[in-house]
Amino acid sequence: MSQRGDVEPVTEENPAEMASIPAESVPTLKVALLGCGVVGSSVATMLVENADDLAARVGARLELIGIAVRRPERARPDVPVDPALFTADADTLVRAADIVIEVIGGIDPARGLILTAMEHGASVVTANKALLAEDGPTLYSAAGEHGVDLYYEAAVAGAIPIVRPMRESLVGDDVQRVLGIVNGTTNFVLDKMDSTGAGFAETVEQAQALGYAEADPTADVEGFDAAAKAAILASLAFHTRVSSDDVHREGITEVTAADIQAARDMDAVVKLLAICELVRDDEGAPTGVSVRVHPAMIARTHPLASVRDAYNAVFVEASAAGELMFYGKGAGGDPTSSAILGDVVAVARHRLAGGHGPKESAYADLPVVDMGLATTRYHISLAVADRPGVLAQVASAFADHGVSIETVRQRMLTDDDESRASLVIVTHRATDSALAATVDALTGLDTVDAVVSWMRVEGA
Amino acid sequence: MSQRGDVEPVTEENPAEMASIPAESVPTLKVALLGCGVVGSSVATMLVENADDLAARVGARLELIGIAVRRPERARPDVPVDPALFTADADTLVRAADIVIEVIGGIDPARGLILTAMEHGASVVTANKALLAEDGPTLYSAAGEHGVDLYYEAAVAGAIPIVRPMRESLVGDDVQRVLGIVNGTTNFVLDKMDSTGAGFAETVEQAQALGYAEADPTADVEGFDAAAKAAILASLAFHTRVSSDDVHREGITEVTAADIQAARDMDAVVKLLAICELVRDDEGAPTGVSVRVHPAMIARTHPLASVRDAYNAVFVEASAAGELMFYGKGAGGDPTSSAILGDVVAVARHRLAGGHGPKESAYADLPVVDMGLATTRYHISLAVADRPGVLAQVASAFADHGVSIETVRQRMLTDDDESRASLVIVTHRATDSALAATVDALTGLDTVDAVVSWMRVEGA
Repeated sequence: MSQRGDVEPVTEENPAEMASIPAESVPTLKVALLGCGVVGSSVATMLVENADDLAARVGARLELIGIAVRRPERARPDVPVDPALFTADADTLVRAADIVIEVIGGIDPARGLILTAMEHGASVVTANKALLAEDGPTLYSAAGEHGVDLYYEAAVAGAIPIVRPMRESLVGDDVQRVLGIVNGTTNFVLDKMDSTGAGFAETVEQAQALGYAEADPTADVEGFDAAAKAAILASLAFHTRVSSDDVHREGITEVTAADIQAARDMDAVVKLLAICELVRDDEGAPTGVSVRVHPAMIARTHPLASVRDAYNAVFVEASAAGELMFYGKGAGGDPTSSAILGDVVAVARHRLAGGHGPKESAYADLPVVDMGLATTRYHISLAVADRPGVLAQVASAFADHGVSIETVRQRMLTDDDESRASLVIVTHRATDSALAATVDALTGLDTVDAVVSWMRVEGA
Repeated sequence: MSQRGDVEPVTEENPAEMASIPAESVPTLKVALLGCGVVGSSVATMLVENADDLAARVGARLELIGIAVRRPERARPDVPVDPALFTADADTLVRAADIVIEVIGGIDPARGLILTAMEHGASVVTANKALLAEDGPTLYSAAGEHGVDLYYEAAVAGAIPIVRPMRESLVGDDVQRVLGIVNGTTNFVLDKMDSTGAGFAETVEQAQALGYAEADPTADVEGFDAAAKAAILASLAFHTRVSSDDVHREGITEVTAADIQAARDMDAVVKLLAICELVRDDEGAPTGVSVRVHPAMIARTHPLASVRDAYNAVFVEASAAGELMFYGKGAGGDPTSSAILGDVVAVARHRLAGGHGPKESAYADLPVVDMGLATTRYHISLAVADRPGVLAQVASAFADHGVSIETVRQRMLTDDDESRASLVIVTHRATDSALAATVDALTGLDTVDAVVSWMRVEGA
């Protein structure tokens, strides 16, 4: 059993100096790895291949004492470690470690192993967005109780440093809004739909063929993955507990080639956004947080619009900092390992020199507001009769629900049907419920053939 | 005199919990502010106006005990503090503080005050890029000796979290290259030259009129400011001491409207880049670092090309993470204060709960290579005679110096001078000295009227 404090720092004041101390006198920290898939293999490889640099940066050698996998007997020639390190007994492994890296994913057995590890004095580095978004407070509470660290940079946006900037760099500022492209699969699909004009189904097939989408793409295209990340980002941004269940979630399965074209027509692109916003009352006092994942149009001039392929980016608006963006690879073995190893060095330095990283900060304890109260802009495309008075009738439907129109564009639908026209309307900010009621009212107008499509517009 | 340890943590395990403890039982940390210009005023305002949130996030109240200025008697109605807090006696002030925020800038008296503060047990947060780039190791050494923190997020790229990501998030990875737009004034000037076609001098005047350039713009346009930031970034990226003097520096004063047009012709923009690169031998082992600031062409498809106006961005390439970019406001009172307050919270948490931030990491101790050994691509524009054999002769001059040509574009110079032509050549990567020798050789060719311009090309 390993307890916090086992490691005797050679010099507490300056661990970096230990780089010049002969290897045999450098202390060792025991590292357990849970999981050896794409990410785990990369983590194990980096721990071995970069061992000397890591030792110099930490001030202690990181000794990989075991890798917990379901089938330890399976040959893993790509992982440059002693095969004897593989074990099916994760529970025993975590009790012997100073630092546990959890890349199994999912809720169980990951949660139990993390809690056991902390009970036995290990700091934990995890990439487990689902667990953090479902039950983060339990993990934080265990970390606090046992005086160990809980780090999870890799849980949001892969290689991109965003958790640490939110937890530490922006902690003296007030975050107003976070707009994130935090799921590479959906960004790849939407980007390809934009560049090729193809539909959703065939683009997903292409993404699967190229390895950008899973055989079962549900977690990505239905927005579950992005929703977990939104919950984590909102918790950090607003010092408030937000779980996956609090996140309004719409995926991209109903985004059509026509939607993408409609976005093009207004010089915009469609992105699946994870949105975290502070909601304020008329006096400007924070009254809640809005956390949602849905497809949205965003102007091509917005920095997020140029995020192509499977890249991720997180756009942050803060009171003092203004607009910030963090861009990079959101998935993949090596990019995720980069984030994990950064956390490993951080928690290892703490074990060596004392102290620990930031605890949970949830003091603001703001309510998560219902989606109906979230405010956003809308793009609505209508098929209407082309005769006098139609626009007035449509405009009244918006006005009746307190929704202010920003732009209207009318054009003939086809050359051979001169009595029908298309109306494209973009609104100012209004509540989601007012917009939904407006769409209902429009559907009931006899001059409106159909509400062809509607989509939220973000990033004004 | 305040000593590290004066503050008795109410609960060492969970400082965040103190948010719920009545105000009178929350501990207090004494904060001294050195300087009250644009940044200092904003820091003081945020400390006062956000006091409750800062207390909840730290677990202790941050008490502003004094602001050192040259003329304490001057009225400062915009700074919402008791005028009695202003003092000319910085030396006494820093001895009484737990945390010292230094925003005076420059080498002296900032250095002496920081060292005095550390001797007396205060942690230091500074935005002073010049001092860090000239004498960072002295500050780090004092911080280590006295067991206090040295934080400086605001010293590079203002509000953008980049120092912490380099020091902590990427510390398990290997940074290969950093390309930074880290000076807002020069980015504003070059961006305006690109969008208007105007020349350097008139654009600088415009920038001055709009407040984007100082009356004496030397530090910005000659690249001194960017060079200091390059030194700091290179030190962090490569775990090696790099000072301002090590940085090869060229400003933008000689960038012409013709250069900007030449960049446009190849679908590129001109940016002043702070470049930090790891240099490797033929086996891939690191042999040195190249650190330089100069104008360079960069393709419009590169993420840095879309950084407009006075915004900053830092593009990082790391072995495992791949390409990352950090974007935001690089200057201004509030953005800089955002970075400073984040650091203040970090060092305050350490004082409360124990531990400290990362120390200097310079173990790699790589030599800074001469500019002649830096490798880059080049764009060279020649005025030549338009007759057979000229291209062969020009191509030979490149080949003779081992410089490989990527593209050549030839066109008539004017309609009325059919015997003269323009040759635009872009090279593959070659050493700067080989390129300089090539340019010399080209100048000596009788078929070459003139080397009209040359500029480095980055971000391939």
